[in-house]
Amino acid sequence: MIYKGIAGADGIGIGQVLIIKEASLDYSHVQFSGKEQEKKRLQDAIATFCQKTEALREKVEKDVGEKQAEILSGQIMMIQDPFMASQMQDFIDNGQCAEAALDAVCNMYIEMFSSVEDDLTNQRATDIRDLRTRLMKILLGQEDIDLRTVEPGTVLVAADFTPSMTAGIQKDNIAGIVTQTGSKTSHSAILARALEIPAVMSVENACTNLKNGETVIVDGGRGEVITDAEPGVLEAYRAKQINEQHEKQALRSLLGKRTETADGKVLAVYSNIGKPADAGAVLDNDGEGVGLFRTEFLFMDRDTCPTEDEQFAAYKQVAEKMKGKEVLIRTLDVGGDKEIAYLHMDKEENPFLGHRAIRYCLDTPDIFETQLRALLRASAYGKIKIMLPLVTTVTEVRRAKEILERLKAKLKEENIPFNENIPVGVMIETPSAAVIADILAKESDFFSIGTNDLTQYTMAVDRGNSKVAPLYSPLNPSVLRLIRNTITAANNAGIPVGMCGEAASDPLMIPLLIVFGLTEFSVTPSAVLKTRKTISLWSVPEAQKLTEDVMQAPNAESVKAILEAQQKK
Amino acid sequence: MIYKGIAGADGIGIGQVLIIKEASLDYSHVQFSGKEQEKKRLQDAIATFCQKTEALREKVEKDVGEKQAEILSGQIMMIQDPFMASQMQDFIDNGQCAEAALDAVCNMYIEMFSSVEDDLTNQRATDIRDLRTRLMKILLGQEDIDLRTVEPGTVLVAADFTPSMTAGIQKDNIAGIVTQTGSKTSHSAILARALEIPAVMSVENACTNLKNGETVIVDGGRGEVITDAEPGVLEAYRAKQINEQHEKQALRSLLGKRTETADGKVLAVYSNIGKPADAGAVLDNDGEGVGLFRTEFLFMDRDTCPTEDEQFAAYKQVAEKMKGKEVLIRTLDVGGDKEIAYLHMDKEENPFLGHRAIRYCLDTPDIFETQLRALLRASAYGKIKIMLPLVTTVTEVRRAKEILERLKAKLKEENIPFNENIPVGVMIETPSAAVIADILAKESDFFSIGTNDLTQYTMAVDRGNSKVAPLYSPLNPSVLRLIRNTITAANNAGIPVGMCGEAASDPLMIPLLIVFGLTEFSVTPSAVLKTRKTISLWSVPEAQKLTEDVMQAPNAESVKAILEAQQKK
Repeated sequence: MIYKGIAGADGIGIGQVLIIKEASLDYSHVQFSGKEQEKKRLQDAIATFCQKTEALREKVEKDVGEKQAEILSGQIMMIQDPFMASQMQDFIDNGQCAEAALDAVCNMYIEMFSSVEDDLTNQRATDIRDLRTRLMKILLGQEDIDLRTVEPGTVLVAADFTPSMTAGIQKDNIAGIVTQTGSKTSHSAILARALEIPAVMSVENACTNLKNGETVIVDGGRGEVITDAEPGVLEAYRAKQINEQHEKQALRSLLGKRTETADGKVLAVYSNIGKPADAGAVLDNDGEGVGLFRTEFLFMDRDTCPTEDEQFAAYKQVAEKMKGKEVLIRTLDVGGDKEIAYLHMDKEENPFLGHRAIRYCLDTPDIFETQLRALLRASAYGKIKIMLPLVTTVTEVRRAKEILERLKAKLKEENIPFNENIPVGVMIETPSAAVIADILAKESDFFSIGTNDLTQYTMAVDRGNSKVAPLYSPLNPSVLRLIRNTITAANNAGIPVGMCGEAASDPLMIPLLIVFGLTEFSVTPSAVLKTRKTISLWSVPEAQKLTEDVMQAPNAESVKAILEAQQKK
Repeated sequence: MIYKGIAGADGIGIGQVLIIKEASLDYSHVQFSGKEQEKKRLQDAIATFCQKTEALREKVEKDVGEKQAEILSGQIMMIQDPFMASQMQDFIDNGQCAEAALDAVCNMYIEMFSSVEDDLTNQRATDIRDLRTRLMKILLGQEDIDLRTVEPGTVLVAADFTPSMTAGIQKDNIAGIVTQTGSKTSHSAILARALEIPAVMSVENACTNLKNGETVIVDGGRGEVITDAEPGVLEAYRAKQINEQHEKQALRSLLGKRTETADGKVLAVYSNIGKPADAGAVLDNDGEGVGLFRTEFLFMDRDTCPTEDEQFAAYKQVAEKMKGKEVLIRTLDVGGDKEIAYLHMDKEENPFLGHRAIRYCLDTPDIFETQLRALLRASAYGKIKIMLPLVTTVTEVRRAKEILERLKAKLKEENIPFNENIPVGVMIETPSAAVIADILAKESDFFSIGTNDLTQYTMAVDRGNSKVAPLYSPLNPSVLRLIRNTITAANNAGIPVGMCGEAASDPLMIPLLIVFGLTEFSVTPSAVLKTRKTISLWSVPEAQKLTEDVMQAPNAESVKAILEAQQKK
């Protein structure tokens, strides 16, 4: 039997099912023991919760990563929120036991967060569910599930995995991960990719259809879970699995090698990062530069904007760590689906078509100038390039450059060192920018194509909206043409052109991008070597022939079919 | 004093200001709808009131002071007082509507507090008056304003006008319309153009800066409102107004004439309509066809979808009224900013990038097939063409045509007459469609360019969002190129190409559209003759020269400057 799901993390996993069921959280037997007593029980449980969660957080930070650990810090902050506490106390004042108060208040939040069709907000609902479960268990005196002790070769199956469930997970013992809900961007999938465990998400009724102890194949690349496999099938998958492991091993041989096509055209693979610490992973994977440093993280999880000095320190740190390699830093890209509470941005009807990124920055000179000044100062310590997001008109580029010139003059007066020739480039991620790429190229030092947004706007599709998701693909001929047009314009103007969207690491897209003339592929650190490998498989004339076929195809379905038929591995 | 705004509808209007501030608080028309229902209405209104007042309180606290904010907290406390609530419920239990209950109870308190000679207590009476007014407005819905009874020569001024406010408006009595918010595409502006009333949108503080009864000049073309005009200025505007009326009169001479350029290239001016009755206005203004019949009206203001027969009757009526002239009927374009309650569409994060128009229809075959069947049946009675909105891929066109073929076969079986060769065309209003216009042209019988949406998606700008409004212009080089690309593709494929967005009647755009090769200009009925006139002013070679200059310009600002410098009048 083959169960279809969403591809969460690449790879073949073969192992025995272990279904992780949530403990019974039935509290109907709990008697109300008086307001003071219930409040004290709740308070004690919260204290225990915070203590346990903090311990877990430290462990997760060490074993898994900072991002996963942040989810747990978030839970501590949530439960310590005075408003949430007072809401629970109200329920207790009305004669409810601590468990009921917890349940009621969490349910309110879960409903609120679940009602929004947005992966990020839905993730908040998952976080609160997790918080509720663990706090309820403390109140009811139940034991935690401990995934640290599972047998080697286990395929974990659950409705969904929460950060607390996966804390202390022993990567070597887990053959695969299967969930009933979630998507490519849910916690379980992100974790699986970080740990390189094959994973399939959103397998309908996985917890009831799969049986404890049965052997299953998890095909994370195809998004399939296979049960009752014939010996021959099992054998084939084992071979594929071994093959994959060899391939991964073989990729290490590309460390320190040039990125070039089979016929010797030299290109470069850069990396996308979200914080200075990620520069280490870029270097470990032999990334040839940072193609996108998102600066939003500097502005998040705090109450005010970072100061010029704080920003300067962060930019300088990355520039220095990268030891003379290029670092493309994107100026603040808020709005759209990225909210920062203290900026008090108005709620918009269509935030993706709203006051975001460069638009917000040009209208908020305090914030923009502080960031640009910090970038200029940091440019004295490495190869920093400034990248402007969501540009649609040449006027926006001119305005940003005018501000930059003014700041340069000021720094000169103050005798503060900076790179006078700091390159200023444009993210090509709106149809407008792609269509007038020739005009923008005259006033830009480089381009970086953001395929996620470019696809979204070209197709008029919110990528977070599952109802229109089938239209969201960079393989649509319209998106491919805009990418080609952008690259051609950059080549004609003699400026470098990179790509920092998902498409840059897609093996299907790579031959096309080579032919279009892309010079830098910017991908997540873990995909650097694989991208280098894919590039090495193609000669320009071969890719040229494929591209000609593809550019004749009328729709994304036929583009995909052509690319898949000729994919090199 | 000259107040600047956005040009909403052409023309000079001179008249006396009438500020439409708030709804009448008369509730004598409200019918008692049962105890439970009235209590629920009251409860809901109180909840809204508390929410609004709390928001106000926060603002006042920040902007004005704590003391003033306390007054608002006091109102919230008052309305939440269980005694006051039970008094109102008593009135409802006695068969009074929520409004009457509110009024009666508030009056009691006002009388009580007013009777005491004490400033502080008197202030309480004022507070309750304010509470009553604001809660009453919530109960009555602020939009219930009746503009049918205004004096001749009135300049209507309001924050904004909603469709319910302008229902039954007497065009002849209204000299001009001024709003504080909104743009060229807001309801107020569209209405003003349809009624040929000069209008200026987004005049800051119009409701407070303008005074009731004062004489103002509304210059809809320039987007200006002039107060305290010197006699000489007033005289000059009156002369201009008379001149305009003469021009309008002169346009009547174009009735029955061909639409052609100065050097004899024959084109056509069609009209956009929203309901069958509008066909009369198209014929009165000598429109050469209906370039866009929006079918949404058929689905609005009712509780269920219109039946096939109801739709058939409406389409047939337009087709017959237009006496053999072409009628391009757009299939249901819901979603985005158009909501139809009974369709129960999910709330989306970015409705303009969501499940709307052709996407919704292809996923909701019941509704789509009913409409297509009605269109097919009506096609036996006139020159109906079917137009698919918001297409982004050729797959969507193919799917729609497959459904159509299936329905045709069925009708044939049933011996119901229809036009077997009914043309099926595509609205080009997404960047994707414009970029692959050559591919779409192979499978479409005609194109119609929707410049409003095309501009919106190309520029990644919600046209209703004032913060990003400056970017929203079809004069951006990217939008112009996409329009040109679309028209060229249609011409190469030998299919007709029209335009039904605002741009088709813009005198600045017309010479460009002539050169690009547009064949049908579809405009509001009242703009037919003026568009015909503008077309007649340009020879193709002249327009060609202008277009070359324009297509070299790097941004919308310079495009506009070139076009304005060479505008013909």
